[in-house]
Amino acid sequence: MKNCLSYGIIGAGNGGLAMAGYLAKKGFVVNLYNRTLQKILPLMEKPTITLTGEKEGTGKLNIVSDNIKEVIENVDIIMVTIPAIGHYNLGKLMAPYLKDGQIIILNPGRTGGALEIYTTLKKNGCDKNIVVGEAQTFIYACRKTSARSAHIYREKNEVSLACIPSTKTDEVIHMLSSAYPQFVPARDVMETSLNNYGAIFHPAPTLLNSGHIERGAPFDYYTEGITPSISKFLEKMDNERMRIAQALNIETCSAKDWLYESYGAVGTNLYEAIQNNPGYKGLLAPKGLNIRYIYEDVPYSLVPMSSLGKQLNIDTPAIDSVIRLAELMTGKDFWNSGRTVEHLGLNGLDLDEIHNFAQTGIVTKEKGVVA
Amino acid sequence: MKNCLSYGIIGAGNGGLAMAGYLAKKGFVVNLYNRTLQKILPLMEKPTITLTGEKEGTGKLNIVSDNIKEVIENVDIIMVTIPAIGHYNLGKLMAPYLKDGQIIILNPGRTGGALEIYTTLKKNGCDKNIVVGEAQTFIYACRKTSARSAHIYREKNEVSLACIPSTKTDEVIHMLSSAYPQFVPARDVMETSLNNYGAIFHPAPTLLNSGHIERGAPFDYYTEGITPSISKFLEKMDNERMRIAQALNIETCSAKDWLYESYGAVGTNLYEAIQNNPGYKGLLAPKGLNIRYIYEDVPYSLVPMSSLGKQLNIDTPAIDSVIRLAELMTGKDFWNSGRTVEHLGLNGLDLDEIHNFAQTGIVTKEKGVVA
Repeated sequence: MKNCLSYGIIGAGNGGLAMAGYLAKKGFVVNLYNRTLQKILPLMEKPTITLTGEKEGTGKLNIVSDNIKEVIENVDIIMVTIPAIGHYNLGKLMAPYLKDGQIIILNPGRTGGALEIYTTLKKNGCDKNIVVGEAQTFIYACRKTSARSAHIYREKNEVSLACIPSTKTDEVIHMLSSAYPQFVPARDVMETSLNNYGAIFHPAPTLLNSGHIERGAPFDYYTEGITPSISKFLEKMDNERMRIAQALNIETCSAKDWLYESYGAVGTNLYEAIQNNPGYKGLLAPKGLNIRYIYEDVPYSLVPMSSLGKQLNIDTPAIDSVIRLAELMTGKDFWNSGRTVEHLGLNGLDLDEIHNFAQTGIVTKEKGVVA
Repeated sequence: MKNCLSYGIIGAGNGGLAMAGYLAKKGFVVNLYNRTLQKILPLMEKPTITLTGEKEGTGKLNIVSDNIKEVIENVDIIMVTIPAIGHYNLGKLMAPYLKDGQIIILNPGRTGGALEIYTTLKKNGCDKNIVVGEAQTFIYACRKTSARSAHIYREKNEVSLACIPSTKTDEVIHMLSSAYPQFVPARDVMETSLNNYGAIFHPAPTLLNSGHIERGAPFDYYTEGITPSISKFLEKMDNERMRIAQALNIETCSAKDWLYESYGAVGTNLYEAIQNNPGYKGLLAPKGLNIRYIYEDVPYSLVPMSSLGKQLNIDTPAIDSVIRLAELMTGKDFWNSGRTVEHLGLNGLDLDEIHNFAQTGIVTKEKGVVA
């Protein structure tokens, strides 16, 4: 099967370009979709992507298009690299063209991405056997350097991944391993969704440094922006996240321990671990507040956590205060546009039913079975 | 009566020292109290205060002491300059020693200061005829420069003041006028309490710049710290404050208009007015989060506004989000330690009853009259 696999990459941003370039260079058949034609015109003229950094070389793409059907209809695996804000519309867009056996992987899903795509496909009349998986984080730290090139700063050592249905997770990880041996199985998509550390590290430090971020004053986002008081606040958010995960019997660790596992950064508390993380040194804060740290991580990471918490009777005051503040600062209704349990199809389900839905994609209620 | 008046100044901080020095220099009899003896030892040895800046000269004090009885028992007017956090304990401390006809003025009261002192005196057995007033803001921008000197940067042109009972407001303003002709009457202490602009300008910009403030990174608090998004958020808080004031038929204006009235700063929105305020230029942000902008303005300005809002069925989501965030960042329960309607004796009162209490100090309920 190796290298006979074909991939459809969704999104020609930082991640999509790096992933498409790498997979093409490895010899896979790679199609690339982007919603905005303008952005991929240079690639349509000359369909090669050149990589620099940890991965080097040039890969040649098969199809580059803003037509979703053309890109996905004949591929084995669809790698979604667009922001979570686009997942719902992407689900609707793909629904008519998917075929039995195709695999969709969200890189990453944030919180509830695979559930959202899965539910959206069903609601939009897709009755094919589709596997929808999500990675816990993006596999690279990378940046697009031009319309046809990307720089890969660092490839992660290990990224967990789960599928709906979860019985397919091992098979999918095996298929992906010829390209990405770093994927390891999670129990189900609730685990990948709750172990979303961007939810902790992105919105709150951004809001609590919003003066300097909006003015574009340069500072190190993590090591300067996350002070002892902010760090204590993040620990409160992280404890709420962990309580939800624990209620769902999900294997999780604190953000502090995750910094140790991911970067080898040690500390007696989160503040020290952040300060001691060489991977964070020199990472400048974003300039301006119109950024994914707010517009993606609030509705697609914090809202589903809070909404799940409410359903499980777990208070999330710190997470809620960040959602509320983000709404008031931006004037956006992140709660109603975000991934609530209603939106994800988890409304009213108990613990077993949630895992069952996450693992099978089937809602089992006393009344009967509703697909 | 002029210059025959005697003053007791409570607090030997920035404001207390400037006020005591000025009143003494003007020839009034001035006693000075401070809770911590250590702080006033130099003044007890040599009881003179030297002023620089807009007011210059040296004044000689009558009594300097950490004994409240000694300081207040023979004075006409007690000028309280301590932070609002001390008002409650000060009320308990003064209660046994007050005499008929004495006047207590809080400089300023923040929100509900006069009500709190008045209620505390009654609860602690003070049955004398005492007038309790509050100023809307402190009359000077000033700083203590040593244990025996202060610098007055600017004296305000106009400061509103109201008393409980409000029938005494004009008389008190007349008495004060020989020292401070700038005091003008407000309808009652609800007006001085709701027109508390520190509630808008202090806690939220501090929290939304908390990274840089805690690190001690220098920046202009107002002109750099209050960016367009933060300013829009402050406008939401300010609208909530105004809705409460309007429900109470209180004369108020927006923070933007207040900047024009106080400083002549113009702008089509709050952001522009702040940027165009020469009085804000160069005012550096505090260094560290353990400051009155949080510990005083949240429990003694925002909590009473929110609590009044709840009683009047006015939603205060922006104000509430700041209270909540401040509690989560500091670990303090500002709501329960703060000036709720219960704490201020306003619990369950309707609009007329609130003003009646503010104007007379008497709670009139159908059941009867409760002092």
